[in-house]
Amino acid sequence: MSKKRVVIAGMGFGGLRAAKALGDSGLELILIDRNNYHLFQPLLYQVATAGLEEEEIAYPLRGLIRGWKNATFLLAEITGVNVADRTIQTDGETIAYDYLIVAAGSRTNYFGMESVANNAFDLKRLDQAEDMRNQILLMFERASRESDISRRKALLTFVIVGGGPTGVEFAGALRELIVYVLSKDHPTIAVSETRIVLIEAADSLLTAMPEDLREYARHKLISMGVEVMLESKVVGATEETVELFGGMTIGTHTLLWSAGVAAAELAGAIPGIERAGAGRLVVNADLTIPGHPEIMVVGDMACCLANGAPLPMMAPVASQQGEYAAQSILARERGATLPPFRYRDKGAMATIGKSSAVAVTRGFKFRGYIAWLAWLLLHLFYLVGFRNRVVVMMNWTYAYWFQERQVRIITAKKRRGGRS
Amino acid sequence: MSKKRVVIAGMGFGGLRAAKALGDSGLELILIDRNNYHLFQPLLYQVATAGLEEEEIAYPLRGLIRGWKNATFLLAEITGVNVADRTIQTDGETIAYDYLIVAAGSRTNYFGMESVANNAFDLKRLDQAEDMRNQILLMFERASRESDISRRKALLTFVIVGGGPTGVEFAGALRELIVYVLSKDHPTIAVSETRIVLIEAADSLLTAMPEDLREYARHKLISMGVEVMLESKVVGATEETVELFGGMTIGTHTLLWSAGVAAAELAGAIPGIERAGAGRLVVNADLTIPGHPEIMVVGDMACCLANGAPLPMMAPVASQQGEYAAQSILARERGATLPPFRYRDKGAMATIGKSSAVAVTRGFKFRGYIAWLAWLLLHLFYLVGFRNRVVVMMNWTYAYWFQERQVRIITAKKRRGGRS
Repeated sequence: MSKKRVVIAGMGFGGLRAAKALGDSGLELILIDRNNYHLFQPLLYQVATAGLEEEEIAYPLRGLIRGWKNATFLLAEITGVNVADRTIQTDGETIAYDYLIVAAGSRTNYFGMESVANNAFDLKRLDQAEDMRNQILLMFERASRESDISRRKALLTFVIVGGGPTGVEFAGALRELIVYVLSKDHPTIAVSETRIVLIEAADSLLTAMPEDLREYARHKLISMGVEVMLESKVVGATEETVELFGGMTIGTHTLLWSAGVAAAELAGAIPGIERAGAGRLVVNADLTIPGHPEIMVVGDMACCLANGAPLPMMAPVASQQGEYAAQSILARERGATLPPFRYRDKGAMATIGKSSAVAVTRGFKFRGYIAWLAWLLLHLFYLVGFRNRVVVMMNWTYAYWFQERQVRIITAKKRRGGRS
Repeated sequence: MSKKRVVIAGMGFGGLRAAKALGDSGLELILIDRNNYHLFQPLLYQVATAGLEEEEIAYPLRGLIRGWKNATFLLAEITGVNVADRTIQTDGETIAYDYLIVAAGSRTNYFGMESVANNAFDLKRLDQAEDMRNQILLMFERASRESDISRRKALLTFVIVGGGPTGVEFAGALRELIVYVLSKDHPTIAVSETRIVLIEAADSLLTAMPEDLREYARHKLISMGVEVMLESKVVGATEETVELFGGMTIGTHTLLWSAGVAAAELAGAIPGIERAGAGRLVVNADLTIPGHPEIMVVGDMACCLANGAPLPMMAPVASQQGEYAAQSILARERGATLPPFRYRDKGAMATIGKSSAVAVTRGFKFRGYIAWLAWLLLHLFYLVGFRNRVVVMMNWTYAYWFQERQVRIITAKKRRGGRS
């Protein structure tokens, strides 16, 4: 009897967790990703704000699978899935599967606004975080050479769209970078010349949080010096402006878009499957695709209903679904069946600045220093790789003590694909 | 009485040392570089072989000058010098100087071989080191997907031209990366399928070293598995081959060129000054330019004779000249004159592999473990920035204990300007 083969398409949080659960199971395992590393996306904003180095939040996948007997990694772009033949097409070989776990995640969603897509930065990939860092540092360099007041103002204005965790965390970290580091690096630039505007379409930040924590986050950001604009919508952008609904225009060279995600392109390459909002694949309660029990979709790509609403596109959902998909395959291999997937909501958290965060878990709410400490420890815990944990811990300690960020180097003068 | 202004063009080893000596002198100081960091070039090869992260060998210049009262940093490209007006032209503003220290370093010299220039990697800049790392890792990924034996062989062949310290250190580090890390990451690739060829035109490696140390280095490299070809010359290259004088061709996708440097382009933008071999500017014994005592040239750009021969293009020469230029300006400002520049040769060293290096100083020769330890400590000592020292130390310790390199991530699939 030959070993059954499980193919995992995408090695984000969902794929990684599934791989870990199947690594030593005896099944043949093929992991595919377009990058040779697992990326710890929740800390991308710290790379973008010169707090961490790229390599610290990336873990080489070949290092992960070294100890597993039947596991292979393939660095490839997946171009399609033939559900009838049970094969995956890549930019090179075609790969047959017995089970397929689709876990390709999401991409940024500009909701069809091309001018925004062409002029905004986003934070999904490692190179985008580096581009963002280069851009921030470069704007300060250019401003320090600029004497025209209005041009200088535009160079020093940073607009962030989207008041979710990424937007909030980035805004806070950027403000601290400017106040503690860049204003000292540039004695000719006053903090009062700089401007950070956080724009959110809804009537509050961090909509997944309880009311009082949302308010805490908003007040904290404002007290730090971030301008928070609620119930505001961006409708367009140029290289030097951001346009809001209602006609207002903000002069800026730096627009970060964190206001929407959609299922990765791969979702469109799996024919005959119903797609829900944001292009997500509609799955059964056991994460399989209707008519194809051998295909499971996990994470951002899956539209999985809980109490009538789709589960949010976030790391804990992906991880738990990845674990479930792996256990479901193992169960089926021994002739058993798992009960439907059930998401265990462990809560949510976001850090706003030094010694300040909000967190909610099992009905308990935390904010301020305690929440910040919890955020720190949890992120360290989930970060993959011993060395990464140590180096990140060191960078954080260093930044905390010395109010300093060492990583503020500009690695390229032109960004490469930052605006995707 | 207004303060005199010293402009330092280029912040490599020469410029950095001059800046440090003048930082608190009371003179006005303007530092110009095209990058916002000082690069510790001697460790670039470790970034290229996944041993260190980029940010660890770069030090932000604005951090350096924070404590100095009259110092300014300018991120700019210098396009020319008007020696009559005493001004520097940049891609933006024009800057007047009372004293000018030219320290723009060197660029790679392909000796007019365009096919080599178009197809080789080199290791002068940070992005080139990242490109090199991506290339090495990518070749292993591609080889693991390639079944054709001769194509596989070419993917796994790495050719290094130039048997100086960079070539020797890179060859040794690459071999260790392959033996200890990549061959374990890729169970389908045997070490015996890989090939590292080090090509040198002279009849020995490390020609600056005493005879027995050269031989030690050569034997050590060979025993590690590196093919050393002496008295061999590369005359051309394509994307998939390297061509030697005499007609021999080696199939490879990866050619590192470390066989020559020439003065930076800026040397050609200072009119009316005699240029020597490799385009270097001929200087007086006090490093000034004939007829222009207010201009001093230091480091790789300066052709400064000692015992009838030009001083080599290396970091210690640049550092000592930078120090001399600064002291010379300070002396002149108080009405004194320094004796001519004299290079104090403190020796040379090169590391070959783990626990193995060669070093010579004041007639004493060292090799093996002792030399390696000395190399380690000296490089840590000269590395700028407390945090960088700690992180590099940690990475080295980690690599030593665990035979592991964590930084092996591919950050881009296409290289950007690696072949310059």
